[in-house]
Amino acid sequence: MTKRIDFQVDPTSMRHWKVEYDGPVAWLSMDVDEKGGLFDGYELKLNSYDLGVDIELADVVQRMRFEHPEVKVVVMRSAKDKVFCAGANIRMLGGAAHAHKVNFCKFTNETRNTFEAALADSGQNYICAVKGSCAGGGYELALACNHIMLTDDSTSSVALPEVPLLAVLPGTGGLTRVTDKRKVRRDLADVFCSVEEGVKGKRAKEWRLVDEVIPNSKFDEVVAERAREFAAQSDKPDVEKGIELTPLSRSFAEDGVTYSSVEVEIDRAGRRATIMIKGPDEDAPADMDAFTAQGAEAWMLRCARELDDAILHLRSNEDEIGLIAFQTQGDPEQVIAHEALLLDNADHWLANEVLAYWKRVLKRVDMTSRSLVAIVEHGSCFAGVLAELLWSVDRSYMMLEEFDGDNRHMATVTLSDANFGRYPMGNDLSRLATRFLAEPEHLDTLKGRVGEALEAEDAEELGLVTYAHDDIDWEDEVRLFMEERASFSPDAMTGMEANLRFAGPETMETRIFGRLTAWQNWIFQRPNAVGPDGALQRYGTGQRGDYNMQRV
Amino acid sequence: MTKRIDFQVDPTSMRHWKVEYDGPVAWLSMDVDEKGGLFDGYELKLNSYDLGVDIELADVVQRMRFEHPEVKVVVMRSAKDKVFCAGANIRMLGGAAHAHKVNFCKFTNETRNTFEAALADSGQNYICAVKGSCAGGGYELALACNHIMLTDDSTSSVALPEVPLLAVLPGTGGLTRVTDKRKVRRDLADVFCSVEEGVKGKRAKEWRLVDEVIPNSKFDEVVAERAREFAAQSDKPDVEKGIELTPLSRSFAEDGVTYSSVEVEIDRAGRRATIMIKGPDEDAPADMDAFTAQGAEAWMLRCARELDDAILHLRSNEDEIGLIAFQTQGDPEQVIAHEALLLDNADHWLANEVLAYWKRVLKRVDMTSRSLVAIVEHGSCFAGVLAELLWSVDRSYMMLEEFDGDNRHMATVTLSDANFGRYPMGNDLSRLATRFLAEPEHLDTLKGRVGEALEAEDAEELGLVTYAHDDIDWEDEVRLFMEERASFSPDAMTGMEANLRFAGPETMETRIFGRLTAWQNWIFQRPNAVGPDGALQRYGTGQRGDYNMQRV
Repeated sequence: MTKRIDFQVDPTSMRHWKVEYDGPVAWLSMDVDEKGGLFDGYELKLNSYDLGVDIELADVVQRMRFEHPEVKVVVMRSAKDKVFCAGANIRMLGGAAHAHKVNFCKFTNETRNTFEAALADSGQNYICAVKGSCAGGGYELALACNHIMLTDDSTSSVALPEVPLLAVLPGTGGLTRVTDKRKVRRDLADVFCSVEEGVKGKRAKEWRLVDEVIPNSKFDEVVAERAREFAAQSDKPDVEKGIELTPLSRSFAEDGVTYSSVEVEIDRAGRRATIMIKGPDEDAPADMDAFTAQGAEAWMLRCARELDDAILHLRSNEDEIGLIAFQTQGDPEQVIAHEALLLDNADHWLANEVLAYWKRVLKRVDMTSRSLVAIVEHGSCFAGVLAELLWSVDRSYMMLEEFDGDNRHMATVTLSDANFGRYPMGNDLSRLATRFLAEPEHLDTLKGRVGEALEAEDAEELGLVTYAHDDIDWEDEVRLFMEERASFSPDAMTGMEANLRFAGPETMETRIFGRLTAWQNWIFQRPNAVGPDGALQRYGTGQRGDYNMQRV
Repeated sequence: MTKRIDFQVDPTSMRHWKVEYDGPVAWLSMDVDEKGGLFDGYELKLNSYDLGVDIELADVVQRMRFEHPEVKVVVMRSAKDKVFCAGANIRMLGGAAHAHKVNFCKFTNETRNTFEAALADSGQNYICAVKGSCAGGGYELALACNHIMLTDDSTSSVALPEVPLLAVLPGTGGLTRVTDKRKVRRDLADVFCSVEEGVKGKRAKEWRLVDEVIPNSKFDEVVAERAREFAAQSDKPDVEKGIELTPLSRSFAEDGVTYSSVEVEIDRAGRRATIMIKGPDEDAPADMDAFTAQGAEAWMLRCARELDDAILHLRSNEDEIGLIAFQTQGDPEQVIAHEALLLDNADHWLANEVLAYWKRVLKRVDMTSRSLVAIVEHGSCFAGVLAELLWSVDRSYMMLEEFDGDNRHMATVTLSDANFGRYPMGNDLSRLATRFLAEPEHLDTLKGRVGEALEAEDAEELGLVTYAHDDIDWEDEVRLFMEERASFSPDAMTGMEANLRFAGPETMETRIFGRLTAWQNWIFQRPNAVGPDGALQRYGTGQRGDYNMQRV
């Protein structure tokens, strides 16, 4: 699997999904092209999916937010007969490297979360109309929707057959959503997750696995009715016209990627990458009309899209890069001004969408299992939304006082109101609240400094950066850190970072990424699952896995 | 490692710990006997520990609760020069099977939690006096205490060097307690967990890693002062005399263990064990004086101790037993009466201790990574505290109506007030509240049925058991379930159960067992840690681990 995985989609040549727009209702149909696998060696039968299918899905969800703000209800269904979705393709999983499986699950999880975020942040409600068998990752798609409707016939069922059939766990939040979103009684969940054939009809509703069970003959009618009802009840403001998410300006080179506002530089020998974010060159648009006219070219949106793509690219295509250094260059006041336009107009649909998108992008950074560092140099613009990166990373270094021969403006950090809750982490706290869990009163001190360009001494004193170093120490300190970090076991770093980054309360989201993902990563390397006689390898041969029965 | 691990300790022949009692203060000194390892092949140098050392520690903590209720403050310290504790023995870890490592960490975690439970449930406060180096599991011992005092000299430091040194995670709650109990700022935690040598002096306090830093010359004096202060502030009631935890009545056979109130039967071919709990034969003691006079012989305490030992035995010594079936036989009214004495006298120190001990034992059941089932037969006594087992297990089967030739009393379930919060799970909810997360109002319905002997139809209808089967179906249904369960991959079962058992809120405890443990299990089988060139194997050779640098 050495081809470059591209997370950008040309919406005119989608292979696996179809969307029909009908006023406030969008009909999203899964129709996976069997021959359209991202890699060779498997066919995507029965609406099974691989990362390529999910990349298209993520793109659909994203475009629905920006290009179709008129949509209040998205109905997810299958275009195939007798099958809703068979889940992740088993042959793909059986042939994939551990790292690919883990990254695949992370991305699909992030995409499922965007279904729920669409309702929470924009009032776009996903409902799932299940006709035919809906198994494994298929049911996890349904679980990510907020209302599940199941056809009451002999072929329609919901199932999580991973444990009995494949000796792995449902990888896309299934177990967590069963217990915490659907609140299925624990012993019934145990039964449900143990039966290959799943649960159908009335029992599926009794067990809270679905919300409605509807006779086949009336299914389409009731689904359409429900979609209209939900749309009518929605408090999403009416918006007539969206903006187009035009193709990214992007070019790949051997050692990096260049976007309009983001530059990725890869140092393979040092096993690290730098993501340089360039602040806006131009003044902020005068108002939301001007912003809307700029559309995908507006810096706040363009930069979010480019950063998102850069992170995804590094995660999937550069797995020996163990450390990502975030840098910025530009005018902090301009960043604050561009962000302020959106904050001041947060009830404008597009301002809301762009801010909510930054929330998602920053969560993507939080969830990136690489060591993350922010390097706050002179000339930088860690302000407002970009300052979030300082607390998303594992640690940060800031230039203190003047550097010989460096005539860029002094390194500063500038807080904005948005840093106090506009971009919460997966734990639903702001990054600052998570950082200062021990001293919540410190947040008030920080609020008093909003808008100030804080130089290194202040920023360190206020706990906003880890280290401030002057010209004499800077180069050695930063170099030593990067070299040391690159020498550690990447597995231990992944585990350590996954534990240290999310202090405080847990949410369904942190449980999925923290607890479920960890168990699944564990199982994904146990011989009972992936060994030559394990269940994943034997799937389809008619032989069950040959298990070592030792419990651990 | 085939010798039987015994979790019972003879307090007269402790090898690794010394306790001096001084009124309300107990001085607990770690003084590990280098030659006292549980297995061959390693020496327990520098106060490093293995499971045997921790079994003794768990015993000390337990006896402190029952035998020394006069103790209000426990001061943990080292009897060795220049070293507090070097953590888990690395050679032991390097040589241990994956299953042993995982079970070792689970037990040590449970023991650390009892430090915190001693304060929460009984007002016994653990403080830690650190002189010398306190690294890895050593610092995790300190973290489990509620007040950490560090000597300010050149050899005293706290450290979590697992990641840089061994390519594994701190295995006993270290990362979670750093972020969630000590609330160390996340970037400082990152630095702390990356430096082998740890942090000493003033900085350790500034970073919140310890509570006090005290010059060497005054250390002993200030520690003694602090112990007296904490004891004086304690609201723990004065109790003059405890009860003795006499040796268990216990005999091992090839296929089981017999205790006075618990019988373990092992079916190796079926890979399952039955734990049969016998209800009390005699009437409940008339009052707490009578209970105290019975001491460790009182059924409520005896049964808890025996069940605890049985669970620990199965976990560590029977790793191919994948399923544990809980059964009871006895008079439900007697169980209720024995429990009621304690509930009615919950402010009596010993009643409080016994109830709090049941809470710990039931948590131990929850955390046991075996499939758990309750079999509610005629003649059984799933009442009050024993009914908790019905909701601790993954699912339950109950006999419905009369069975041919079975003249035992009808199977019933009896709720007591204690089922509504007296024995909370690690998530701090009662098992019933966790079970009925979707319908909290159902708890009120159940409260209305307290004291009724509910037969199968009612118990099933009320959601207290999973299945009720009559004489015709019973045998097949139970047999099929057990056979099917025994055929599944044990790893997948472990992961599934770890996710389904703990719906609802997370606590430090669930985070430790759910998130941290899972990541650690993962890392514990990665070649970077345990492979022939991994860090654990190379430890002490002067060579660092040779890592595959791929991130996943």
